[in-house]
Amino acid sequence: MAAFGFQGTRDLSPQQMVVREKILDMVIDCFKRHGAKRLDTPAFELKEMLTEKYGEDSGLIYDLKDQGGELLSLRYDLTVPFARYLAMNKVKRMKRYQVGKVWRRESPTIVQGRYREFCQCDFDIAGQFDPMIPDAECLKIMCEVLSGLQLGDFLIKVNDRRILDGILAVCAVPQSKFHAICSSIDKLDKIPWKDVRHEMVAKKGLAPEVADRIGDYVQRHGGVSLVEEMFQDSRLSQNKQALEGLGDLRLLFEYLTLFGIAEKISFDLSLARGLDYYTGVIYEAVLLQTPAQAEECLSVGSVAAGGRYDGLVGVFDPKGHTVPCVGLSIGVERIFAILEERMKTAGLKIRTTETQVFVATPQKNFLHERLKLISELWDAGIKAELLYKNNPKLLTQLHYCEHMGIPLVVIIGEQELKEGVIKLRSVASREEVAIKRENLVAEIQKKLSES
Amino acid sequence: MAAFGFQGTRDLSPQQMVVREKILDMVIDCFKRHGAKRLDTPAFELKEMLTEKYGEDSGLIYDLKDQGGELLSLRYDLTVPFARYLAMNKVKRMKRYQVGKVWRRESPTIVQGRYREFCQCDFDIAGQFDPMIPDAECLKIMCEVLSGLQLGDFLIKVNDRRILDGILAVCAVPQSKFHAICSSIDKLDKIPWKDVRHEMVAKKGLAPEVADRIGDYVQRHGGVSLVEEMFQDSRLSQNKQALEGLGDLRLLFEYLTLFGIAEKISFDLSLARGLDYYTGVIYEAVLLQTPAQAEECLSVGSVAAGGRYDGLVGVFDPKGHTVPCVGLSIGVERIFAILEERMKTAGLKIRTTETQVFVATPQKNFLHERLKLISELWDAGIKAELLYKNNPKLLTQLHYCEHMGIPLVVIIGEQELKEGVIKLRSVASREEVAIKRENLVAEIQKKLSES
Repeated sequence: MAAFGFQGTRDLSPQQMVVREKILDMVIDCFKRHGAKRLDTPAFELKEMLTEKYGEDSGLIYDLKDQGGELLSLRYDLTVPFARYLAMNKVKRMKRYQVGKVWRRESPTIVQGRYREFCQCDFDIAGQFDPMIPDAECLKIMCEVLSGLQLGDFLIKVNDRRILDGILAVCAVPQSKFHAICSSIDKLDKIPWKDVRHEMVAKKGLAPEVADRIGDYVQRHGGVSLVEEMFQDSRLSQNKQALEGLGDLRLLFEYLTLFGIAEKISFDLSLARGLDYYTGVIYEAVLLQTPAQAEECLSVGSVAAGGRYDGLVGVFDPKGHTVPCVGLSIGVERIFAILEERMKTAGLKIRTTETQVFVATPQKNFLHERLKLISELWDAGIKAELLYKNNPKLLTQLHYCEHMGIPLVVIIGEQELKEGVIKLRSVASREEVAIKRENLVAEIQKKLSES
Repeated sequence: MAAFGFQGTRDLSPQQMVVREKILDMVIDCFKRHGAKRLDTPAFELKEMLTEKYGEDSGLIYDLKDQGGELLSLRYDLTVPFARYLAMNKVKRMKRYQVGKVWRRESPTIVQGRYREFCQCDFDIAGQFDPMIPDAECLKIMCEVLSGLQLGDFLIKVNDRRILDGILAVCAVPQSKFHAICSSIDKLDKIPWKDVRHEMVAKKGLAPEVADRIGDYVQRHGGVSLVEEMFQDSRLSQNKQALEGLGDLRLLFEYLTLFGIAEKISFDLSLARGLDYYTGVIYEAVLLQTPAQAEECLSVGSVAAGGRYDGLVGVFDPKGHTVPCVGLSIGVERIFAILEERMKTAGLKIRTTETQVFVATPQKNFLHERLKLISELWDAGIKAELLYKNNPKLLTQLHYCEHMGIPLVVIIGEQELKEGVIKLRSVASREEVAIKRENLVAEIQKKLSES
């Protein structure tokens, strides 16, 4: 377990950083494969920019102390800053990715890989386009990332805010309760229907028969055939919003089939997503658990999510001009946690440095020669180290190489100096060859390219 | 000029991000070449960890609002968190680098490339070693980075806190005024001696003859010969601390000569560095200005700095056990500003995406074919885009490629579909070749590897 600087955040050790960088590189590669540009925004935003964007979770926003000047808050996600950027710069069309930390004042539950500071990787497509083409690409990206990281089988749940609103409307839920009821529905992946129903009735004041009508819908999930079935639903088919949502989902499934990923997607009527800004299709990827791993996987939860938010940019524009957007966020922290755990279980040793050559000597008073030599290596772009000692023992130096996984050692001593040579030793095979001092860099580069 | 989110911070556009990532890659490559491991620490630390570490600049620390729990502050640099990490984890030896943002409540002066949020790249060596070997490596790294980035000629000023303290002692400055007088001396690179002297006498209450004695020392700079000269100085040679500092500098110059960088180093008795935690050798790299560029370069100031801080880890250790440390920080923000300016002047167009292939059609109702085709490319790891339109015009599609610098276009239409081929078009030469649909991926990969 990593050490905690204080409750809820942590330092990331070199071992952890190696795993994280590999994962981030893979995610970023995927985002670039889909033509995204990279954007960066500040860690804090004006406090007012973040209010009323995150529904029930707004209390989790970190505020900065008022030390004079504007009131500031740490960013809670990368979506709101992106929308603010688009509005501020009057950008009407942009495919961007952003990788960065966000901060939330959550009760830290370490086992779930939840921290108060965590990294997000977001990909979003802003602009007015023909329906569902960018949305389908977002789902394709989620599949590519999750397959690429070899996390095991996964499923992407899809729903549409308009279908959900339509369901609530045809079930006669008062408009003022939509938000509260949605957040109850969203819990269906964690608690059984009877508990959700209880919450709706006892805590949120819904009539029991209304709750039951909702239950008939939201407990359903399936593929494109469920979309068609809902089109035939006597009540839902009367609701304009729901029909729009269903029409978009039908089209989405068409495109997902062309992308060869339709079987990874489940139309799930209980998916609600907590954030206020979503307006259309929403989705969430979960890892599927084989029984043996059930407990471990259960604690991991969603590993990627996103949706369409067509109104958010307009909120930041002085004239209310909006830009339709759709995007996704990869929950890399949870992925880090899974892969770290897997590597620990497998007992894999991770190299935390990339040093290629170690400069050693068996003799005393050879610091000057070592420094001259290593300087040559560095200047040739070779990754090299030595011990910061005037007279280290040869065994100490060789042990260091073995411990750190450094493949090559250059040895210089009295004899070598006299003959104008250098010994080049392979740490794994313990083979040593003498090479001419002037060929040192070339020989090392040859050796490194062979391995 | 980049847009300001609010006073003192800014969004970084895709163009800026491309430049930054190139620079950061180069810096990180250098750090890895010297065997460093990567560490990451949270954006905020316990407030108490940061107090009394930064001298006169402590007022610039951003505090978080007290929302319950610990009092937190945004990190001000990467050095203090590193020392805290070493103490907390009882690490006695570590060569680490860290790249991340830090925050300071400074008055933003955009022309100097100073912002309230900025990126730092730090390399540090912690551990008890033989003197000046790690220190010399830090200076070598600064040279490698600054040469590698081709920023023009530069100079690294070197001094030692103990020499500075020795000077103040032999000049009869009261111990209680050391800090205040040091910070006056540190201004000598920006304002002339007479103004510094005035500050010492009028504002800081130093006797004029004491100030004059200080002036005789701190206006001097030179190479290793100045070190030898100071050894002979009748007053300074009586001061134990100064002698230790001079002895270390003599050794340092010996190693710098072996590294071939002694001519880049200037022993500068006015260099003081503001931060409280330095205990030994200190250094600061400045770009040298040719007269024509004088105004521009003057505003850039120091681009890298660092020093030895042997006491800082002990401050965080419950038993006061310390770990000697030496390190450096690359002022990448200033380097970004210089290189961005240079690219703007040169009128260089920067590609902000890496898309290799665009999927186009000259006909209506070809969206399905385009989606199937692009999905194949993505699955083969090829970076590909299409327009999110059902029926885009061919000209619009080709213009997009030219505008975005995409080198290849795959064209599919009625005729191609019938014949089982695809047209592959080079955007630059406008050449088109027909290739078999089943060879598409292989042909594209071949084409891309040729260019």
